[in-house]
Amino acid sequence: MKLGRLNHVGVATPSIADSIAFYRDVMGASVVTEPFDMAEQGVKVCFVHTPGAGGTEGTQIELIEPIGESAGIRAFLAKNPAGGQHHLCFEVPDIHAARDEFLAMGKKVLGEPRIGAHGTLIFFVHPRDMGGVLTEIMETPKHAAGH
Amino acid sequence: MKLGRLNHVGVATPSIADSIAFYRDVMGASVVTEPFDMAEQGVKVCFVHTPGAGGTEGTQIELIEPIGESAGIRAFLAKNPAGGQHHLCFEVPDIHAARDEFLAMGKKVLGEPRIGAHGTLIFFVHPRDMGGVLTEIMETPKHAAGH
Repeated sequence: MKLGRLNHVGVATPSIADSIAFYRDVMGASVVTEPFDMAEQGVKVCFVHTPGAGGTEGTQIELIEPIGESAGIRAFLAKNPAGGQHHLCFEVPDIHAARDEFLAMGKKVLGEPRIGAHGTLIFFVHPRDMGGVLTEIMETPKHAAGH
Repeated sequence: MKLGRLNHVGVATPSIADSIAFYRDVMGASVVTEPFDMAEQGVKVCFVHTPGAGGTEGTQIELIEPIGESAGIRAFLAKNPAGGQHHLCFEVPDIHAARDEFLAMGKKVLGEPRIGAHGTLIFFVHPRDMGGVLTEIMETPKHAAGH
């Protein structure tokens, strides 16, 4: 495995609308994507763009608000009512190869690869095996291959 | 204020040596800087480089281990013994202008600007005013101005 781009930092919030206002008005973000529901995960998400080096696209902030009663993110917000950093997402070129590598290293991979918020396959690895950091592994979108 | 580059994600760890081994052996990092002590903050830190888009330098992971008895990071590790995400650090062109803006917005700025791990001036803003995210604001290093 070769360390890939840090695609985004997931940040949980009790109100995606308030967090969007915060990133626009306090932090000065100019590009925030339209929030959309990921019904299966019970969450509403959107992405705050940050500038990368040399005019490239930087690591995004993914804002995550629970919408379903059973969303795992509810437990996180119960412990952190104001919200906070929830996970890190790194890109890989091949999601299935990455999953095999994590499994071979004895890491607790959470479920089969599924379509994530960027439309490519993702999976999560349990924080207990990852230095306390809930880690998302995401296949690089094909249109970004030249990045 | 205009949202700047996400310079790094701060990750607390009970053992910087173990975390370096993790990022090298599990995540496949190829560049990890030599750890050094920041005695005044009571921490030892180093940076894991991640690749940005188009061959640029990406957002770094700052590994942080407490070395002093009074390090604030000890409280974090008491709650999160395995380690975990501790703060986000965004770049600004002018640290004093940024501090004035945060103060004018009524945000709790933690102390005067001081030299941070990258050798430029930094300050922190309290998470209670920042959607639960402890936020570091860092003046962009001059050598990186062309990035």
